[in-house]
Amino acid sequence: MSHPLRTHIEAVSKLTDEEFDHILSHFTPVKLKKHSSLVREGDLVKHEYFVLKGCLRSYITDNTGKEFTYQFAVETWWISEREAFMKHTPASTAIECLEDCQLLALSYEDREKLGRELWKYEHYLAVKSNMGYVALQKRLQLMIMGSAKERFENFVHQYPHLYNRIPKTHIASYLGVSRETISRLYRK
Amino acid sequence: MSHPLRTHIEAVSKLTDEEFDHILSHFTPVKLKKHSSLVREGDLVKHEYFVLKGCLRSYITDNTGKEFTYQFAVETWWISEREAFMKHTPASTAIECLEDCQLLALSYEDREKLGRELWKYEHYLAVKSNMGYVALQKRLQLMIMGSAKERFENFVHQYPHLYNRIPKTHIASYLGVSRETISRLYRK
Repeated sequence: MSHPLRTHIEAVSKLTDEEFDHILSHFTPVKLKKHSSLVREGDLVKHEYFVLKGCLRSYITDNTGKEFTYQFAVETWWISEREAFMKHTPASTAIECLEDCQLLALSYEDREKLGRELWKYEHYLAVKSNMGYVALQKRLQLMIMGSAKERFENFVHQYPHLYNRIPKTHIASYLGVSRETISRLYRK
Repeated sequence: MSHPLRTHIEAVSKLTDEEFDHILSHFTPVKLKKHSSLVREGDLVKHEYFVLKGCLRSYITDNTGKEFTYQFAVETWWISEREAFMKHTPASTAIECLEDCQLLALSYEDREKLGRELWKYEHYLAVKSNMGYVALQKRLQLMIMGSAKERFENFVHQYPHLYNRIPKTHIASYLGVSRETISRLYRK
């Protein structure tokens, strides 16, 4: 069976065994326990992470203690505090493990190096980022135009493997609905 | 003075004169009058556009006639229906000219060709897309956590050259606030 990272890259560009081995040699394995932090607010973020196993979320907390969940990540997804990672600024969002996690970490320097050495990797980054942008636009649109019910139904439809895996309270803060509303929607 | 497209690309990667001339030779000039459509819902979208002069917006209309503005574009910004352009599917958002516009059009095939021929162009695409993703994440966060007032103030702060150039009604549909609210915010 192909390595999950290889499968993910090859959805964009086919690789030779040598190319994939070269790419993989730049990644470092990371193991984290459930409830531990991958990134804290204010951290410098030197890596991005490919998820081999487990589930994480990135979120911010406003000054009233209210949380907003930016993103979830499960197997074969990437996660980082992207702005801090790209611009070398302190993290404004935090990332925590919702389960025990096995990740592959890639440093900013190695990411740039791989992109320079291997056009296919740079192309993979461009395509991945574009698809992420399109998905985020849809989410924004649904947030503005969709009801709480429509947002929840869309989430269940888009991520059928997630809505029973992730605590309801985090799904509520991802969809921008109250906990009461999310509980009502789950009961239906 | 450097060509605005060259300045935009060189914010990421320096180009030789030959490289820039080669890139520019793939673009086609487009002139459009105020109020005309660049993309209609259902169109196939074969180009993305770099704005030389003028102002555009992309938007969708829901089945109650309510509009949501996805994006504005003015001089040196890019605009397209990105999902339709990347995936070759019919457009689900429309793009209209809010002023007389001069654009440079690049086809999907030429975009891919330039990216393959010139690593710097592929890198520019990856960086541009990443920065767009980060900006969109912030907008989403503000939409969920910020009040109408905070969203408006952030818009004015971020785009001081836009809020008196674009009709209030479109800024309202970009920020997800009512026309009454936007008028009240402008009066302050």
